[in-house]
Parts: sequence; C-alpha cells; structure tokens
Amino acid sequence: MIQIFVTGGTFDKEYNYLTGELFFKNTHISDLLTQGRNNVPVDIKTLMMIDSLEMSDEDRNIILHNCRKTKHKDIIITHGTDTMVETAKVIAEGNLKDKTIIITGALIPAAFGNSSDGFFNLGASLTISQVLDPGVYICMNGKIFNWDNVKKNKATGFFEEL
Amino acid sequence: MIQIFVTGGTFDKEYNYLTGELFFKNTHISDLLTQGRNNVPVDIKTLMMIDSLEMSDEDRNIILHNCRKTKHKDIIITHGTDTMVETAKVIAEGNLKDKTIIITGALIPAAFGNSSDGFFNLGASLTISQVLDPGVYICMNGKIFNWDNVKKNKATGFFEEL
Amino acid sequence: MIQIFVTGGTFDKEYNYLTGELFFKNTHISDLLTQGRNNVPVDIKTLMMIDSLEMSDEDRNIILHNCRKTKHKDIIITHGTDTMVETAKVIAEGNLKDKTIIITGALIPAAFGNSSDGFFNLGASLTISQVLDPGVYICMNGKIFNWDNVKKNKATGFFEEL
Amino acid sequence: MIQIFVTGGTFDKEYNYLTGELFFKNTHISDLLTQGRNNVPVDIKTLMMIDSLEMSDEDRNIILHNCRKTKHKDIIITHGTDTMVETAKVIAEGNLKDKTIIITGALIPAAFGNSSDGFFNLGASLTISQVLDPGVYICMNGKIFNWDNVKKNKATGFFEEL
Repeated sequence: MIQIFVTGGTFDKEYNYLTGELFFKNTHISDLLTQGRNNVPVDIKTLMMIDSLEMSDEDRNIILHNCRKTKHKDIIITHGTDTMVETAKVIAEGNLKDKTIIITGALIPAAFGNSSDGFFNLGASLTISQVLDPGVYICMNGKIFNWDNVKKNKATGFFEEL
Repeated sequence: MIQIFVTGGTFDKEYNYLTGELFFKNTHISDLLTQGRNNVPVDIKTLMMIDSLEMSDEDRNIILHNCRKTKHKDIIITHGTDTMVETAKVIAEGNLKDKTIIITGALIPAAFGNSSDGFFNLGASLTISQVLDPGVYICMNGKIFNWDNVKKNKATGFFEEL
Repeated sequence: MIQIFVTGGTFDKEYNYLTGELFFKNTHISDLLTQGRNNVPVDIKTLMMIDSLEMSDEDRNIILHNCRKTKHKDIIITHGTDTMVETAKVIAEGNLKDKTIIITGALIPAAFGNSSDGFFNLGASLTISQVLDPGVYICMNGKIFNWDNVKKNKATGFFEEL
Repeated sequence: MIQIFVTGGTFDKEYNYLTGELFFKNTHISDLLTQGRNNVPVDIKTLMMIDSLEMSDEDRNIILHNCRKTKHKDIIITHGTDTMVETAKVIAEGNLKDKTIIITGALIPAAFGNSSDGFFNLGASLTISQVLDPGVYICMNGKIFNWDNVKKNKATGFFEEL
C-alpha cells in the first residue's frame, strides 16, 4: 500500500468559468490512477489544497506530521512546483529514517487533459517509490532527484541538479 | 540518453475510420514525451509496428540485436502485452550484462487519449530505468517486475508475480 | 426538450483490453453533453447498441416506431455511418410530418477523446435540430444533408451530396 | 467557404507554466477542425487575441470592418463570452444585409481538452451558419440566439433569452 498525500499545486488546478480564474476543487489523483489502470493499492489523503507559493511553515509541518504518522513506508506527495524544494527540506530534516518519500507535481494542470504532464509524473512517482532506498526525493518530467541536490530553474520551469 | 525501441502493440494502435479496425501508423511516443514535458534526452527508434501475438522468434532476435548494439545503457521497449514475457526472456537470455532494459506497453491505445494507461506507464519506465540495476524488467500499471517473476493474468489483463 | 435516440455505431465503440477488440458498453452521449455544457433539455434513450452494418429491417422499424411515438418534435439519432443513409430513407418513408429528425455519428469513437469527431457532430446536430424545417437529415463533419441527397463516400469516409 | 475570425476569449486561453497564469498564444481552431474531420472549406483569420473584457470600441470596429470586407457570406467569430452581446450589437448595427454571422466561444478553454465546450460550440456554429437566414447570432452550449434577444447570465455562465 502506497500513501498519497495531496497538497494542491498546479496538478489540481481547475478553471472557474464564471471568473476565468484557476482554483482548487477536488483532486484528480483518483481519476488519474483509474486511467493509468494502476494496480498498486493506494491510500489517498488530501492534506490541503493550496498553491505552493502560499504554503506556510505550519502547512509544511502538517505534511511532515502526516508522513511521520502514516504506517505506510512509501509516500507520494503532490505539491506545487514553486516551493517543492523547501517542503522536501523540511521533511528530510524530520529524519523519517525508513520511509521513501517522493514529491511530485505538474507544470500543466491535470484538468488540461492530454496536455498535462501530471499523469506522466504520477506514474513515475508511484512506480519508483517501490524501488528507491529510504529518503526524500523530487520526481518531475522523467527525472528523479535527491532532495538536497535539486532546484527549480525559474526560467525554464524544469527541475535540475545543483 | 535513454534508448527507446518501439515495436508496436496496443500502445500504438490507431482507429481506421474506413474499415472500423485498429491498425498501426506512427508511434505516439514522441508526442507523449512532449506532453509529459520529458526532460531526459531520448533516442527513439521504431524497430517494427506489430501486434505482439504476431511477433516471431526472428522479430525477438531483431529486438535483442538492437539492445546489444545500442551504445546507451538504459533501454525502454514498447511492446504488446500478450507476449511481453516471452520477449523479456529472449532478451534476458541474451545476457546483456551492463544494461537496464524495461519493457512496457498499454492496455488501452494511446490514441484513446485521456483513457489510455500508456502515458502513465511510459513516465514510470523512463524514470525508473535510471535507477534500476542492470537487468530485464516489465513495467506496467504502477508495478515493476523482474523478467523471470511475472506473468500476464489473461482474465484481468494485469501483470502479476508468479 | 430534444429527443436523442442512441443506436450504437462507431460513436459509442469502446476498446476491450482483454481481447483487443472494439465493443459496445454504455453510450457516451450523456458525458459529451456535460462536457459541452449543453444547456438544452434532452431525453436520451438507448434503442440498441450495434454496428450499423448489422442493422436489420426490424431494427430500422424499431427506430422509426420510436420516432413516431416520442412526443418531442426534434429528434437526434446516433448511428453507425455505414448504413446511415438506409435508415434515413426508412424514417423518411415513415412520413412523420411535423418532426425534425437528424441522424449523426462519428468516424472515430468518442472513447478516443480528443481525436474523435463525435463531440463536434453532436454539438452541430443538437443545435441545428432547433432551426431546421421538419424532415429527415444527416449531419456529419460540418455538413447537413437532406436524406435523399446524400451518400457516404466509401473511399474517403465522408458524406457528400449525390 | 466559411470565414472564421478569431478574436481570443476563453476559447483560446493557454496555461503558462512559468507564471501559473492563463495567456494567449495561437488559436486552437485549426486543430479542432481537423479533429472534427470538418469537411467544409474554411478561411481562418486571427483578428486579435484578447480577453473580451478588454475589447475596445476600436477592436469591435475592426471586427465589423472584417465582416464587411470578406467576400464570404457565412462568418463565424470566436469571442470571449463576457462581451459577446456587445460585439453582436455593433455588428448588427453595421447592417451587413446578406451575411450570416455567428459569434461563438467557450466557457472552458479548448486547451483543457476533453473538458472544454469549445469543440461542441464550434461544430454547432459551423454547421448552422449554412442554414440560417442572414443576421447576427450567438451560438453557445446547444443554443442559438438572435443578437437582440440574448444575455449572459453572470450567475450561471450560460446565455439565455431576454
């Protein structure tokens, strides 16, 4: 059983056709796993639904607390890309020795259907969580990074090694 | 650089609207990688475009030969699910010691857009190929299997351990 | 209120991932209307779920009977393209004087998501049924035809005037 | 030949993954017509790419001018929904006697793939333009309205008669 924690981010943004703005409603994770004919048992829990630019220290502590509390060894966290690295650091410093924690997300909202990378990243995170050694990782766009050797390149939108 | 070999299978089936039948045209791999905002260099080569039920020993030897010949260490092969295990065995017996070879595919054609698992499986295969030890694996629907410990369950369509 | 009769055809074909064949399950019409944010009341009734090449005289009489029986003036019938013209003729000869009946379908199954024309044809049929004079029409790929001035071009898959 | 004028609006909004905001790049009209296997010749011209809340009197005069100038009798204009009615009025007052002009758009951007109504509305507009009498109309979500008998309901997002 893999634990999935949902925190919001671009991954789960929707289009509000009354205001023309993006907003959060429900997570798409469950639908995407159905679509991927995912065959691994998962436990999905939404911790918050926020833009990662608005994520506070308290929010990160809630995520850390849930990672510590869950009885599952493999954990995937969906998260906005802007502060993914900060959250990874907080979790790594929480020193959850035997757990494999992968933070993932999307550059394009899953609601954009075929043009979103979220589904691709989710498949990667879910599968790789089962083979990686315990630690904290970021998984995006075909790459997997250790939490202390990654940054988001603001000019390209992609993650890269330091 | 990851080597991707395309062999056809459900992954790349298209709908022929003149005959109402499924057929092969071009591979969707490149489009899917664009959609996944894949950030890992890949070399895509189509070896054949066939249903895996029609794959002959000779076809499998062509795949093995290409795996041996490529200078890239990590290899992904898209393949029909029906005989994925047979091809994995042929490659494993080829004894390509230092290479990580992952065979993947789809239960639903990528042409079905949002309802296909191909994109999910591709993201998983591409990412996990970078961390697995050399060997031959099958990656489908959130799971990764060693070539000699997997079978397709014909009743469910899913792969499972022996 | 617009009456929609579902008869199957390419429009509603699904992919069976156990057999690799196309088959019928449930109609996609309701989902497509939700997606189109359709704002016109409709009454959807599935009459049959068959390939139009397998449609018998009896099946066509069932369709005609339902067109006659419904209390709604505007009727849309989803139908396989191969024998759309034959069914249109049977209905026209039924002489349902005050009804506007539009037969539509898809070259590519709606299950193919973004690559299907079904959604496009459905929007057209639903809207145009409200303004056309009583009669029997075929509506496909941006065009509207009178039942007695249309044929399917087997070489291109498209409908054209005689 | 049907003339299509593109002016932007929700229809053509894209997601900018660097800023997390929606923006305009190229129109999706041509791709959508391919997907709809549209079989009617069209001439697509982008007049502007703006949110209709930012559309000025001058912009509306540019649209009117182009409607007058084109040699094609049937015209479709893609447009943001917020001020669709204002633009329809300007064009109607331009008194283009022999032309059938249909303004359409989308509640959800076409870039959202399967969840957008744009494709549905485009199919409807394109087909119905060929049968309506000269005049100025708004076509949205299965309905067709005369320019002087329609308003957008800001609470629901839908268009309705006065």
